[in-house]
Amino acid sequence: MHDDDEMSGRITLATVAKEAGVSMPTVSKVLNGRSDVSRTTRAKVERLLDVHGYRRRTQSASRSPLIEIVFHELESIWAMELIRGVENVAKENRATVALTESGTRHTPAPEWLPGVLQRRPLGVVLVFSTLPEDIKRQLRAAAIPLVVIDPAGDPDPDVPSVGSANWAGGLAATRHLTDLGHERVAIITGPEDMLCSLARLDGYRSAMAMAGLETDPRLMRFGDFHVQSGFEHAMDLLNGPDRPTAVFAGSDLQALGVLEAARVRGLRVPEDLSVVGYDDVPLAQWSSPPLTTVHQPLRHMAEEATRMLLRPDDPGTATQRIELATRLVVRQSTARLQGV
Amino acid sequence: MHDDDEMSGRITLATVAKEAGVSMPTVSKVLNGRSDVSRTTRAKVERLLDVHGYRRRTQSASRSPLIEIVFHELESIWAMELIRGVENVAKENRATVALTESGTRHTPAPEWLPGVLQRRPLGVVLVFSTLPEDIKRQLRAAAIPLVVIDPAGDPDPDVPSVGSANWAGGLAATRHLTDLGHERVAIITGPEDMLCSLARLDGYRSAMAMAGLETDPRLMRFGDFHVQSGFEHAMDLLNGPDRPTAVFAGSDLQALGVLEAARVRGLRVPEDLSVVGYDDVPLAQWSSPPLTTVHQPLRHMAEEATRMLLRPDDPGTATQRIELATRLVVRQSTARLQGV
Repeated sequence: MHDDDEMSGRITLATVAKEAGVSMPTVSKVLNGRSDVSRTTRAKVERLLDVHGYRRRTQSASRSPLIEIVFHELESIWAMELIRGVENVAKENRATVALTESGTRHTPAPEWLPGVLQRRPLGVVLVFSTLPEDIKRQLRAAAIPLVVIDPAGDPDPDVPSVGSANWAGGLAATRHLTDLGHERVAIITGPEDMLCSLARLDGYRSAMAMAGLETDPRLMRFGDFHVQSGFEHAMDLLNGPDRPTAVFAGSDLQALGVLEAARVRGLRVPEDLSVVGYDDVPLAQWSSPPLTTVHQPLRHMAEEATRMLLRPDDPGTATQRIELATRLVVRQSTARLQGV
Repeated sequence: MHDDDEMSGRITLATVAKEAGVSMPTVSKVLNGRSDVSRTTRAKVERLLDVHGYRRRTQSASRSPLIEIVFHELESIWAMELIRGVENVAKENRATVALTESGTRHTPAPEWLPGVLQRRPLGVVLVFSTLPEDIKRQLRAAAIPLVVIDPAGDPDPDVPSVGSANWAGGLAATRHLTDLGHERVAIITGPEDMLCSLARLDGYRSAMAMAGLETDPRLMRFGDFHVQSGFEHAMDLLNGPDRPTAVFAGSDLQALGVLEAARVRGLRVPEDLSVVGYDDVPLAQWSSPPLTTVHQPLRHMAEEATRMLLRPDDPGTATQRIELATRLVVRQSTARLQGV
């Protein structure tokens, strides 16, 4: 079967060369990401390779066993959990994890693609970002599969991705608070332009409605998922007699900001204020008090994404979306509403 | 000059082959980490390569531009800072960071060495660990330089390393507390078998002596640098009327444990208890209250280590030790002693 594949591969390359009006070595140069090919020729050959569905067979002997994880923001507190997940599956497959930073969420730095084509990893795990059409095509032509870890819930329909259940997470966090008797429940969700923020907010609304509670627009805020944003919104929310008795903070970092605002306002957590985070990054259990939060299975998501890359049925062609479940983890930052 | 080097390299290889009584291709196999060479032959050839001071020239065309960072504990909260440092310098040099986990602090997993020899990185940054003699020799023979990031302050004299000033850090943390008027100052340092723990403890003792204060053995504890250990020691230290008014917690994670113990014991930080951490990992500024701590320049240490690898004057031969300065960062977990 391998021989058949190789044979059909060669026939495809010859066809592509003929149709593009170039030599086989030129097609080969395009496949290897060499720079001594004109832009026009490269584009033409890539389009034809795509049309003919050419997939280079994995040449395990010549290809270094790397799995590449690409961040646009290595600063993220999530990064380590995701790296661990990729590393776990890489190790099972005796591969090494290579770590690169892309330029922005939408366009990698210009040197990134030639580097990947030269390194020829078994596959690329993109964190939280998308790639321009021509780069996806070049990766496909080089038979380097691509999977996106997308906790933001906004997948490129063209690329397999792993996300998690944001709406259900928002619902679980808020129900926990209403079940404890809280009626004035505030939410600080993420940025307005991220689907995961909207899904968590809608989960909050549904939980409030299920508990027969009105939502108050003054208690619903958009943050940016970072500590300072949680602190500032909470300083404002906790100012005045009509303050909420509970805050669903949208992220663990925002929850840390809420804890600090409570301290500054002289409120005890959980006696005077209940706080729920989101993500369950390691520091959630180290805060004082330890955070009740929604566990987002980041490591597991990274493992699944890496497995999708390595599956024999070329994941580059079968577009897939997996959403892993979230679950509430109750620690010590939430308590039953005290008689007010 | 490059030609001369290459020429002298070939002459060395011929000499080694002759002295070892093997063919040039066999020497070549040893250099490339191939497995089809007997243990005895490999050992003999490696010893001779070492004796003759053979260093393979960097062949940038054939070698993939990887810099490898090796952790024995990817769980560490420090990992991300160190990865960022290596990534910064890798990017300047258009190299990619590969991340591997070694087995233990003293012996990498058996598949690690063949993998490195096959990947042929520009160099290897080891975090917090040492390598057995024969592995160091094989890396030297393959001209893969090695540098250790060693915040523990216990360097292998054989390998270049980057550490930081632990004694000075312990002194600065404790002086800050005695300057604020604290006399009953406790310390929870790290494990008794790590030089960095002992250096920080000695810095504490000197600061106490400089302030004319007695040290109380009941206030001096060995922890393991993790949150739980800080929590448990602090629960014990803060129990009873004779409690300390300040704790130098030895690490940021232990400091988080102390904050939680203070909360459980009903003590306010910093009004009733001052707490100083060590490391200044990102979460130190997000705790409630934000931690006063000793900044250990982890990212800068990783940058320096990576630069040492890439320096033209073969760092594999010139053994070097660099210690970077630590500095106190005052935030909100420390305050002047209130009238007792």
